Amino acid sequence: MVRAIYPGSFDPVTNGHLDIIERACKVFDHLTVAVLGNPRKISLFKMEERVSMLKTIAKKFSNVEVDYYDGLLIDYADKINANIIVKGLRAVSDFEIEFQMALANRNLNPKVETMFLMSNNIYSFISSSIVKEVAGYGGNIKDMVPMEVHQIIVEKINSFKND
Amino acid sequence: MVRAIYPGSFDPVTNGHLDIIERACKVFDHLTVAVLGNPRKISLFKMEERVSMLKTIAKKFSNVEVDYYDGLLIDYADKINANIIVKGLRAVSDFEIEFQMALANRNLNPKVETMFLMSNNIYSFISSSIVKEVAGYGGNIKDMVPMEVHQIIVEKINSFKND
Amino acid sequence: MVRAIYPGSFDPVTNGHLDIIERACKVFDHLTVAVLGNPRKISLFKMEERVSMLKTIAKKFSNVEVDYYDGLLIDYADKINANIIVKGLRAVSDFEIEFQMALANRNLNPKVETMFLMSNNIYSFISSSIVKEVAGYGGNIKDMVPMEVHQIIVEKINSFKND
Amino acid sequence: MVRAIYPGSFDPVTNGHLDIIERACKVFDHLTVAVLGNPRKISLFKMEERVSMLKTIAKKFSNVEVDYYDGLLIDYADKINANIIVKGLRAVSDFEIEFQMALANRNLNPKVETMFLMSNNIYSFISSSIVKEVAGYGGNIKDMVPMEVHQIIVEKINSFKND
Amino acid sequence: MVRAIYPGSFDPVTNGHLDIIERACKVFDHLTVAVLGNPRKISLFKMEERVSMLKTIAKKFSNVEVDYYDGLLIDYADKINANIIVKGLRAVSDFEIEFQMALANRNLNPKVETMFLMSNNIYSFISSSIVKEVAGYGGNIKDMVPMEVHQIIVEKINSFKND
Amino acid sequence: MVRAIYPGSFDPVTNGHLDIIERACKVFDHLTVAVLGNPRKISLFKMEERVSMLKTIAKKFSNVEVDYYDGLLIDYADKINANIIVKGLRAVSDFEIEFQMALANRNLNPKVETMFLMSNNIYSFISSSIVKEVAGYGGNIKDMVPMEVHQIIVEKINSFKND
Repeated sequence: MVRAIYPGSFDPVTNGHLDIIERACKVFDHLTVAVLGNPRKISLFKMEERVSMLKTIAKKFSNVEVDYYDGLLIDYADKINANIIVKGLRAVSDFEIEFQMALANRNLNPKVETMFLMSNNIYSFISSSIVKEVAGYGGNIKDMVPMEVHQIIVEKINSFKND
Repeated sequence: MVRAIYPGSFDPVTNGHLDIIERACKVFDHLTVAVLGNPRKISLFKMEERVSMLKTIAKKFSNVEVDYYDGLLIDYADKINANIIVKGLRAVSDFEIEFQMALANRNLNPKVETMFLMSNNIYSFISSSIVKEVAGYGGNIKDMVPMEVHQIIVEKINSFKND
Repeated sequence: MVRAIYPGSFDPVTNGHLDIIERACKVFDHLTVAVLGNPRKISLFKMEERVSMLKTIAKKFSNVEVDYYDGLLIDYADKINANIIVKGLRAVSDFEIEFQMALANRNLNPKVETMFLMSNNIYSFISSSIVKEVAGYGGNIKDMVPMEVHQIIVEKINSFKND
Repeated sequence: MVRAIYPGSFDPVTNGHLDIIERACKVFDHLTVAVLGNPRKISLFKMEERVSMLKTIAKKFSNVEVDYYDGLLIDYADKINANIIVKGLRAVSDFEIEFQMALANRNLNPKVETMFLMSNNIYSFISSSIVKEVAGYGGNIKDMVPMEVHQIIVEKINSFKND
Repeated sequence: MVRAIYPGSFDPVTNGHLDIIERACKVFDHLTVAVLGNPRKISLFKMEERVSMLKTIAKKFSNVEVDYYDGLLIDYADKINANIIVKGLRAVSDFEIEFQMALANRNLNPKVETMFLMSNNIYSFISSSIVKEVAGYGGNIKDMVPMEVHQIIVEKINSFKND
Repeated sequence: MVRAIYPGSFDPVTNGHLDIIERACKVFDHLTVAVLGNPRKISLFKMEERVSMLKTIAKKFSNVEVDYYDGLLIDYADKINANIIVKGLRAVSDFEIEFQMALANRNLNPKVETMFLMSNNIYSFISSSIVKEVAGYGGNIKDMVPMEVHQIIVEKINSFKND
């Protein structure tokens, strides 16, 4: 059985992430979407909010699970018996960072393979940062994030402004 | 009438910015150089200093105006009836960020078009960060910034060191 | 009056080209789509076929004209009094070639400015080469080329196979 | 069952190709290494030679088969019931070409997914062209090509020089 | 006599740095490995720790010296009579930043030339950041950093976690 | 003594090549500009013409010699006792090809090191292909090629048109 992980910050989830989830879960027997709890990177959405949004959009895929981890991705992969890391590639700058990470992870555990999917629709080019930037100024993000969590994202960002 | 915006941080203005202003104002009927007031990004020069330096160098162009904005660029474009956003491209990394921003802006308002000019002399490759780095250590920046504001930039940076 | 040229081989025209034409003709007063007659590059479609297909799709734009040229683009620009060259950017490799061409053209005639638009829908990433490759093997190209010329392109390519 | 194709020219096979084969056959249930018969591209090695070299190195992998095809990759995938195309990425320039091909293939058949592996040892950066260049001038290629076919490649290239 | 500088943060030194030191000191008569004391960038290792680790690994090269500087690199080069700056290139993103820095330095002092070496083994792709990331989560970094300082790096990073 | 080679096609020499020659001969004790005789690549200028133009512009540098070679660069380096290969980098696409060549050469002979200089004035971005393209259509190339050979290049290209 081929078990894959799709790791990320998902702060918040975008249509680009959704596109990768939809495609990856057709290729592998099981897919864990794993939210990284990175204590050094300040996130807008709390871990439980990010997990919860992902669970909402993952509901429709029978072989997709949502989880979180901290520490090394490769240790987490080992723990849940995953042998594949899935990543999306949007641009050349993604390519280079992912290339270094894939080499480092392979050095740490050669049994776990990193595989890449290319973004393939216009809104999958959009990053979480751009979503936050646009929504933060009251711009319309409905084409950039999954329909099911659009309202939650907008409200969260508005609540920050009302503080 | 084609009205264009050239947005940026201009912290401080460089010869690269001047090159784009000079070329863009020949192409479009009217050009607004618009300084972004980004509360999340700490700038060395205050908004009024950045606007003032740009006004100094823009004086010689009859169809160039200097302004500032905060919020979404696309909303500001709407407010001043601009239909073009002008950007300079220096390098591949510029290309990728600008590509994402152009897609996002187009999604927000398809009537506003983003157009790009390539940097075309050596000092137009120089960024505001490099100018601050070099001047901060007492290096000579006279080929990197417009003559009219060279002294102001040097003094500002020196005053920081005397603090 | 700002007159622009959109130069290219258009062998054959794709939806990427159509996207640039549609957007550029809104920005400039007049747009000449100019087919390059390059004696050193073998084209699949004859010059008159490429011009004819472009005329078919340009019909709906009142300020777009179709023409052809050989020799230096910058001389042709001079001849038709155009002051802008418009180019589409799809990828980093486009960026680099266009950057060199823009520098060379600027050296030859600094009055003519090159401006760039970013591809902004998935089929605008598709190149003429890929269209020929796919259609040559009987693949479906209907999302890749303008509807009005789809049939002509398919027939031309089939006629080659029947030779 | 997940069946994958690893397509290419393999003119000749290199250690970079071998690396991808070794890693991909651990991920998927079955892997077909498929040599493209491209009538427009002149190859140094004949189709049967390329297939034969690949069969030699594929012997040790129980779930790897070697085949050839002409026409569209996506039609071939359909014919052999493969749902995955595997590609190796060495460099940014690979990334861009593969990105366009992946988009085109996805448009032709959305059920077939393209997945990418990053090259991960120094000799996997080496291309078939560099192998031919080096061997053609009598240079040592033993670190660049699989041991089992090293002699065949050297002899073939020498035989050309004796003509 | 050709005197070269290899500047960097070395926070901490990696096998990539060691590779450049080994190769550069064969080309130039004298090589100074110069640690940048950047007050605006927080480092994990103290200046004296970074210098000390570099001295440990530089011991075996008779023409390599270790030093530190703050201020402009080009002023430091002047002070120690160096006419060459040596840099390693791993990836396209390195290329662009280094390109801007080389232009700026050349403008400041055209007598000092910047020369580049390409990373040439897999672990030389690894950056200081990835080393800290991996070691910080208890991952194995022994292939990523020079043997002689491996223990020091691991202990330092562990001591942070015990705080 | 550090002996370097600057290899290339030089078909014809440009101001970009001249820039590299001028800078490299200050760094190394001796520089051989070596014209590659590549039987598979059709050149516009004959080998003796390319060597002769380079000799004209190299006259003013006391430690620069002009030569030609065929076969592997690394064998030629060995023959003339050179330990350095010098290359110019203009753009990201150069970077990737040169990276592969540097790896291949290092594998063939680890004693020969490849070092890179970045192009540093606008006309050094210009390639031999663009020079031929522009001059072939009667465009002005006087800023793109060394003054001393400008006339020869223009005449050669004109003679082709009169055939």
